[in-house]
Amino acid sequence: MSKVRVGVIGTGAMGTSHVRTLSRWVSQAQVVTAYDADVARVKQVCQEVGARTADGPEAVIGADDVDAVLIAAPDPLHQDLVMSCLSAGKPVLCEKPLATSATGSQEIIDAEVALGRRLVQVGFMRRYDPAYVALRSTVLDGDLGAVRVVHCVHRNAESHPSATSEGIVTNSMIHELDTVPWLLDDTWSAVTMTLPKVADGALRDPQIGVLETAGGVVVTSEVFVNAGYGYDVQCEVVGDAGTARLTPPYGLGFRRGGSDGFPVAADFIVRFDDAYRFELAAWVDSVAAGSATGASAWDAHRADLAAEAARRSLTSGTRETITTPDPPDLYRP
Amino acid sequence: MSKVRVGVIGTGAMGTSHVRTLSRWVSQAQVVTAYDADVARVKQVCQEVGARTADGPEAVIGADDVDAVLIAAPDPLHQDLVMSCLSAGKPVLCEKPLATSATGSQEIIDAEVALGRRLVQVGFMRRYDPAYVALRSTVLDGDLGAVRVVHCVHRNAESHPSATSEGIVTNSMIHELDTVPWLLDDTWSAVTMTLPKVADGALRDPQIGVLETAGGVVVTSEVFVNAGYGYDVQCEVVGDAGTARLTPPYGLGFRRGGSDGFPVAADFIVRFDDAYRFELAAWVDSVAAGSATGASAWDAHRADLAAEAARRSLTSGTRETITTPDPPDLYRP
Amino acid sequence: MSKVRVGVIGTGAMGTSHVRTLSRWVSQAQVVTAYDADVARVKQVCQEVGARTADGPEAVIGADDVDAVLIAAPDPLHQDLVMSCLSAGKPVLCEKPLATSATGSQEIIDAEVALGRRLVQVGFMRRYDPAYVALRSTVLDGDLGAVRVVHCVHRNAESHPSATSEGIVTNSMIHELDTVPWLLDDTWSAVTMTLPKVADGALRDPQIGVLETAGGVVVTSEVFVNAGYGYDVQCEVVGDAGTARLTPPYGLGFRRGGSDGFPVAADFIVRFDDAYRFELAAWVDSVAAGSATGASAWDAHRADLAAEAARRSLTSGTRETITTPDPPDLYRP
Amino acid sequence: MSKVRVGVIGTGAMGTSHVRTLSRWVSQAQVVTAYDADVARVKQVCQEVGARTADGPEAVIGADDVDAVLIAAPDPLHQDLVMSCLSAGKPVLCEKPLATSATGSQEIIDAEVALGRRLVQVGFMRRYDPAYVALRSTVLDGDLGAVRVVHCVHRNAESHPSATSEGIVTNSMIHELDTVPWLLDDTWSAVTMTLPKVADGALRDPQIGVLETAGGVVVTSEVFVNAGYGYDVQCEVVGDAGTARLTPPYGLGFRRGGSDGFPVAADFIVRFDDAYRFELAAWVDSVAAGSATGASAWDAHRADLAAEAARRSLTSGTRETITTPDPPDLYRP
Repeated sequence: MSKVRVGVIGTGAMGTSHVRTLSRWVSQAQVVTAYDADVARVKQVCQEVGARTADGPEAVIGADDVDAVLIAAPDPLHQDLVMSCLSAGKPVLCEKPLATSATGSQEIIDAEVALGRRLVQVGFMRRYDPAYVALRSTVLDGDLGAVRVVHCVHRNAESHPSATSEGIVTNSMIHELDTVPWLLDDTWSAVTMTLPKVADGALRDPQIGVLETAGGVVVTSEVFVNAGYGYDVQCEVVGDAGTARLTPPYGLGFRRGGSDGFPVAADFIVRFDDAYRFELAAWVDSVAAGSATGASAWDAHRADLAAEAARRSLTSGTRETITTPDPPDLYRP
Repeated sequence: MSKVRVGVIGTGAMGTSHVRTLSRWVSQAQVVTAYDADVARVKQVCQEVGARTADGPEAVIGADDVDAVLIAAPDPLHQDLVMSCLSAGKPVLCEKPLATSATGSQEIIDAEVALGRRLVQVGFMRRYDPAYVALRSTVLDGDLGAVRVVHCVHRNAESHPSATSEGIVTNSMIHELDTVPWLLDDTWSAVTMTLPKVADGALRDPQIGVLETAGGVVVTSEVFVNAGYGYDVQCEVVGDAGTARLTPPYGLGFRRGGSDGFPVAADFIVRFDDAYRFELAAWVDSVAAGSATGASAWDAHRADLAAEAARRSLTSGTRETITTPDPPDLYRP
Repeated sequence: MSKVRVGVIGTGAMGTSHVRTLSRWVSQAQVVTAYDADVARVKQVCQEVGARTADGPEAVIGADDVDAVLIAAPDPLHQDLVMSCLSAGKPVLCEKPLATSATGSQEIIDAEVALGRRLVQVGFMRRYDPAYVALRSTVLDGDLGAVRVVHCVHRNAESHPSATSEGIVTNSMIHELDTVPWLLDDTWSAVTMTLPKVADGALRDPQIGVLETAGGVVVTSEVFVNAGYGYDVQCEVVGDAGTARLTPPYGLGFRRGGSDGFPVAADFIVRFDDAYRFELAAWVDSVAAGSATGASAWDAHRADLAAEAARRSLTSGTRETITTPDPPDLYRP
Repeated sequence: MSKVRVGVIGTGAMGTSHVRTLSRWVSQAQVVTAYDADVARVKQVCQEVGARTADGPEAVIGADDVDAVLIAAPDPLHQDLVMSCLSAGKPVLCEKPLATSATGSQEIIDAEVALGRRLVQVGFMRRYDPAYVALRSTVLDGDLGAVRVVHCVHRNAESHPSATSEGIVTNSMIHELDTVPWLLDDTWSAVTMTLPKVADGALRDPQIGVLETAGGVVVTSEVFVNAGYGYDVQCEVVGDAGTARLTPPYGLGFRRGGSDGFPVAADFIVRFDDAYRFELAAWVDSVAAGSATGASAWDAHRADLAAEAARRSLTSGTRETITTPDPPDLYRP
């Protein structure tokens, strides 16, 4: 089994975590080169894992010894970088979002369809979280009977100063927009956003969405990126034969100071540690096998279409229909 | 301290439970008479507590030795029975719903305002549940910061064969429609109902509502009256300084058969046992003191107005505004 | 149903709580008189419930209008007061401990046997806690198969300055010494105490006991009266077909400050609120019926014999046999 | 970074799991050869990961291209195989038990001390479980104040037909005998085993142990290898400033069939999946670095001495002193 040689673009917190996971925990992978605008940072990461520093993203994508590319660069660069990978015929794992608009993800789909083979995987890591995977099996095996409702909660301790009200949909709610159709094997049909009052001019946070699927399931979504107490992702699927939900992550419980409780994870990198590892390994396996796995460009596009409707609903305050076209043949199971 | 002598109308499951609770657990109360259309049943209950059987509801309301009336008769009779109590100038605790329409509760308000004193308490028992009471204190003390969102779940094991889609709002969701304004010291401004697809002609169950308050809080409500696994009421209040929620009721946990779990309460009489006791005692105290407490006719009317909007939304599928008038002076704190 | 007229001796925290519970929540009871060495306190409590203040304990026990006596006086007075009640032929509910030694409880048994009827109930309130009651049913119904092990934890936030190492057995562990034989319908056969090292001269706290029953069940007991975080009673029964345990008390859960947790009860009066009410009501019912219920003098004696063995083991550091004689016929079911 | 080439002896369930984990998840490792008495099985495992099948254990240990040896053979073979590794001067990770007696582990220590460097790591995987690691940090950082008590529960669904009463100590309780001294940075001083009654001739299961440490901490241990409901490991450390405990593993919770619960892991390979991975990676890293990590031969010997005392106590029914000699210099931090 020869190694899959990976080139990485972007070595911020997420990219650095991926480089380390690939190098230490994914035997089949070897990180051969990386690029980041922050030269000092990328040098340090590369040294740590024995990779060479690249001069720019094209030097990563174009390198002869790079079999596959991992993109963890700033969001606005994703689309162009993925297009470059497609031009180079190289498999690519791109952190979400795949593009900053549904038009963008459509362009990628067009390019990939033109190529005639799937090269793009999108970094929706929840699909690799063990409990989400078990939840999906439970749902698709019919253990819960007919699914009627899904309740989702996504909370961060604190948002980045640059966060925008629309960005909460694009960057955070986007996870539910991908995960739920995957959990249910269903597609979106409508979304209505309702926003609690906040101070004038303040970030519209939290945001409540009610989504509907083509199959008639109703999904509630709370995204609250300044919840203060930590990073907390909840999901309960309600069927007519029972409900199933994620339990709190494993760790320590403390009885002290008048309280019986347990600490909440600080961020997603800690919380989805195993999910990221399984995601990277599955990607590397698929590259080695010449196949594709995980969330596709079409899955990302489906989420983008829902996100655009959700952003429209932020403004309109009303129910917005989501029209999801049939996927191109390339993306059919 | 002389006893408050109570007459009871309706000795079905709820009424019988109230008679027993009053007789056994509320020292200040004495049940002196009761009426029910089922003569055998009311005889047995009366014998149990040493009360006499009444020939009809008016014989209860009109009896000289009845200081206060408890109504647990079938829903459609509530309004007229309460009006009779008002005519007789007797304090009355009426199980919800106070009336079957907002027009009905308005008539009661008009009558009570004309009388110039509060005689009506409505049986929204959650206001007496210890954890709900603590939740309210936490919210009003500001422990959670500014409240942004409330999540409510109300599940029954199984609905009565006579249940209707509109009745789910009127009989079940009505609890949230009263409880949340009380929790937040706020009023309703809008509601949007969204319904999962079910078989043609089947009961529209579960029902998802998104409610908005005048203060700008967004409330999600799931009511599912055929959830199968038991009676389960959940509530989480989300503030910008933390969240608080009801924990599962006290009882036993079992580790067996591959699972670590605990049994869920079968019904509301078991689940809200303490709440019913506290409710009855508070009512009896207020009668003895010549004052009023708990949910008023105006509180019930406010919930009815929201319920009517919710029922309209069931049909329209869109957001319905809830206009809550200012309360008459009688109902101001 | 005429009232059971109760006289109360001792109106400290526990006694005052009992007076209020009897007056407000136990319809069948009427507190007619009370005594306490603290005259101001007893006056206030009596005024609150419309009872008269007694000049001394004998004025309570001897009063013609006192049908039954509740003793919540300081522990060293219990035995003599109970003996006086027996002399007067009056039913008595005595807070634990019934006596400060097994010799003491034996004297009470002798007197009660001589009388030929049970008048004494001992205040082991856990027997009335709903979850303990359910736990016992589960065990005795055989739901857990053959019981092998019971794990008990008893923690207080903080001990009284007067607490002694032996007193931890006599005042705290005594609850488990009564509860477990009742849970299992079994008797004690041996106890071994093992004590963590503490600073020289400090209270020997916590204390670990391993107890054995005649039926061959092994029971672990942790008593920690300075656990700091609150009042916390845990119990798990382990059978060869599953385990059952008390779940945490109902209340609020909080997500804030980096933690997901819930507040622990401050003390036993809060924690066992319902248990105390059920205990008092059952006692009053049994007095009205001329029968007896709850923990008997013999039950208390059985616990005292175990406590004496446990105290011997505190010193010897070795396994001490507990010899429980057959109960007199009076105490057989 | 060249790979650490590993030879594996024993490809039963545990050994096969290790081979797969090393090959897939530990980038620094390469499994080059393996041996098992079951030729078909070892062939299949080797083929899966591209390793060659060895003719016998010595062919694994003696192979030029084997840098380090992993032993997952039947327990009675461990000691001799480890001694062979020491003779060959090769690092070895040996599943517990290191030997079947304290004399056996002493011989290994003597040999390792004679060599003058640590080559032996013992497979006490709990030291790598994330929550156990966090628990240890919490304890050693003083967050819980002075530790007084540790409660341990170890339950298996079902024991192997060959299980013996002594084997429950040697194979199961041995985990606590290693983990607790590591958690507390302390050593054992005494153990008392107390056994519930079972049918004549039946396996003595469950077993309750009370252990004492040199530092004065009291440890309760329940081992129950036929608990029926699943594999369940619990640990709570009780200090005078609070307690900390492992929370249930992450997964799904189900509300159905009258119950709110979650499935318990079937076995240790599932339950300690991450721990095994971290253990193997730490071992491989230490081999690469020419150093040693994890549980040493001396740690295993310390646990063996405690296990022998516990087995004596099974028979004697009394407290048995555990004399732990000072470790040879080789094992000092």
